[in-house]
Amino acid sequence: MGANAIVGQSGGPTAVINSSLAGVFSACRSCGAKTIYGMRYGVQGLLDEKIVDLTQTLSSTLAVELLQRTPATYLGSCRYKLPDFRVDAQPYEKLFKILKKYDIGYFFYIGGNDSMDTILKLSDYAMETNCDIRFIGVPKTIDNDLMITDHTPGYGSAAKYIGITVKELVRDSTIYDMKSVTIVEIMGRNAGWLTAAAALAEDADCEGAKMICLPETIFDPERFIEQVAALQKESPSLVIAVSEGIRCADGRYVCELGNSDLNIDPFGHKYLTGTASYLSRLVAHKLRTKTRAVELSTLQRCAAHTASRTDVMEAYQSGGAAAFAAFAGKTGMMVALKRLSDDPYQCITELHDIHDVANYEKTVPLHWIDTKNARMNKEFLTYARPLILSEVNPLYVGGLPQHIRL
Amino acid sequence: MGANAIVGQSGGPTAVINSSLAGVFSACRSCGAKTIYGMRYGVQGLLDEKIVDLTQTLSSTLAVELLQRTPATYLGSCRYKLPDFRVDAQPYEKLFKILKKYDIGYFFYIGGNDSMDTILKLSDYAMETNCDIRFIGVPKTIDNDLMITDHTPGYGSAAKYIGITVKELVRDSTIYDMKSVTIVEIMGRNAGWLTAAAALAEDADCEGAKMICLPETIFDPERFIEQVAALQKESPSLVIAVSEGIRCADGRYVCELGNSDLNIDPFGHKYLTGTASYLSRLVAHKLRTKTRAVELSTLQRCAAHTASRTDVMEAYQSGGAAAFAAFAGKTGMMVALKRLSDDPYQCITELHDIHDVANYEKTVPLHWIDTKNARMNKEFLTYARPLILSEVNPLYVGGLPQHIRL
Repeated sequence: MGANAIVGQSGGPTAVINSSLAGVFSACRSCGAKTIYGMRYGVQGLLDEKIVDLTQTLSSTLAVELLQRTPATYLGSCRYKLPDFRVDAQPYEKLFKILKKYDIGYFFYIGGNDSMDTILKLSDYAMETNCDIRFIGVPKTIDNDLMITDHTPGYGSAAKYIGITVKELVRDSTIYDMKSVTIVEIMGRNAGWLTAAAALAEDADCEGAKMICLPETIFDPERFIEQVAALQKESPSLVIAVSEGIRCADGRYVCELGNSDLNIDPFGHKYLTGTASYLSRLVAHKLRTKTRAVELSTLQRCAAHTASRTDVMEAYQSGGAAAFAAFAGKTGMMVALKRLSDDPYQCITELHDIHDVANYEKTVPLHWIDTKNARMNKEFLTYARPLILSEVNPLYVGGLPQHIRL
Repeated sequence: MGANAIVGQSGGPTAVINSSLAGVFSACRSCGAKTIYGMRYGVQGLLDEKIVDLTQTLSSTLAVELLQRTPATYLGSCRYKLPDFRVDAQPYEKLFKILKKYDIGYFFYIGGNDSMDTILKLSDYAMETNCDIRFIGVPKTIDNDLMITDHTPGYGSAAKYIGITVKELVRDSTIYDMKSVTIVEIMGRNAGWLTAAAALAEDADCEGAKMICLPETIFDPERFIEQVAALQKESPSLVIAVSEGIRCADGRYVCELGNSDLNIDPFGHKYLTGTASYLSRLVAHKLRTKTRAVELSTLQRCAAHTASRTDVMEAYQSGGAAAFAAFAGKTGMMVALKRLSDDPYQCITELHDIHDVANYEKTVPLHWIDTKNARMNKEFLTYARPLILSEVNPLYVGGLPQHIRL
């Protein structure tokens, strides 16, 4: 049994993925891990033996505090998918050789669907080859699209950022005594969890987003224009939240209805961007109204300065639970969050077989969506409200939040 | 002499224009104003007698606290330019009749260049017609382009938002072990003050923005590509800040080099948007690098949750100084900020004749710009750093900042 632990981060960043890293690190240390390594750039970097000794770089308690307040991935990330080991065992042989060289007994991977697939494959391979390294996944994604877990660490902070931003945009949008439509484009290709979070802005002090369009429902541009026109009769200044992934009945993305040639990168990949800008041009021309398109872009996934304390804590707890599980002999599992109650909110970590999690995508339940009016039902708000509760105080130096980097 | 005061807000919003309103309101009350009115939607609303009694709506100290934490304009705003009264006195006659009806002795207008023009014209007209109403301007603009004042309330908070955001984007941009260029588009048509604020992000814990392109200097797309290519040899992941107003040697805006037909609104006005998206496509094609365009859009002017405490305080002080000046018999003046020292920072309010201020635009001094390397010199940092210092705690309710609205 290896005496050391290794941890990696994978996929897109969040505001709290480093808090999960801090949780893994702290719990491994208290469980008695000799050295705790970090893989640079996930499994891809590990294949090149890009490894850092976290017991060195995170030796002070201040460093661990800063880590919990630093967005994106401290260790770097990758988008690497392991092949089926029955087809191509070569990367597995290479990886396990490196793990043996560093005397690794405990392997942690913090990420979303693809990362859980990595845990699944590595733990299956270990089982097959009678290797006793333990593999545990720690959930992470702003998209909140992982199965089984009540929600994913990272979602609450992104949702909070979206709530704050929509509230501020609503105030900004009402300043002139004239009609205007502000269309806010929010991340989410197939799952509308992030866009739905715009519903959190509505309160006694805020008009909120008047329409919320998710990829879970079909988008009809003509009906959209009719609804905007009807809403403008009551409130001249509207803020509307749309997911980057909304699609028409024929399956085309709304962003493709505009200048689709602009949305292809030099490698031929389609960008899902331009949905808000296309719709704002459409509204401007059809309704002769002042419009504005706002893309939250990467800001929504890296805004650590507005992280949800609930989210930061749960990310830390998830990392810790992963370490405790591995040291208790578990492998091939993912930590999940289980909600005990909504208000007062209580939530605990539990463990699930990685085979039940990987490669499935969780979308917003259709009965949480008021499809007719393009709004969220109460069930969604009951679900989402606790996740954005409480704040983290960034460590401000010279007026800006202090981060930690390798 | 009228017993009452009236205050209006005009032009684009900022994170702290409501703090100036709070300053005018509180100081008018302590100076003995009977009733303090607010004009809805600036002078344009006043012409329609759209008036609100602030002594009613801001009767609690909590309301005034919330006002200082609420972005955009509590009273609403307008973009209305008074005609020359020698050519067309009609709106003046109407306005002064309304002011008389409400027994106004003190008139305050919080805004930028156009708003100071309003104060100039109204005070000149009052002088001409022997009217004893006193007119004082309170500076406000995220653009920082007003003459005489060291800086404008609103700039510090926008600069702080830009600094925070660029720091977070830099962390986000470095996560993959590959080349990438993130281009951040920042407001500023002719003055680069906001874009320059991206320079604040660079510190021991942050690589910062590697290039900063301001409208004060000519933009050469070919040289830009060469510089990006050279910088990528040292740091594979680059964040670059560009002003929406950057122009080529022939005077064309960079955003016009792309699909210029997309940038015309239904009323025929050119939008200055798409600079980052044009440049990111250019870099992607020329250098075959992953690129990303981020537009900070209206977020940079309404992000009250990251307001600079220095800015909020100075906005409040400026509003207060305007009230004190009016009650001391002054008219036709603007409050300005005068810096006494950089570090420790000290700054006081003073008064200037409105004729010296209105209708001039202040740009970034050329010797503060390292044109060759597209970076800011030390002089700019010395100037800007104190303006983003310290934080305001939003009043969070249910995880979101609480605002106040009419």
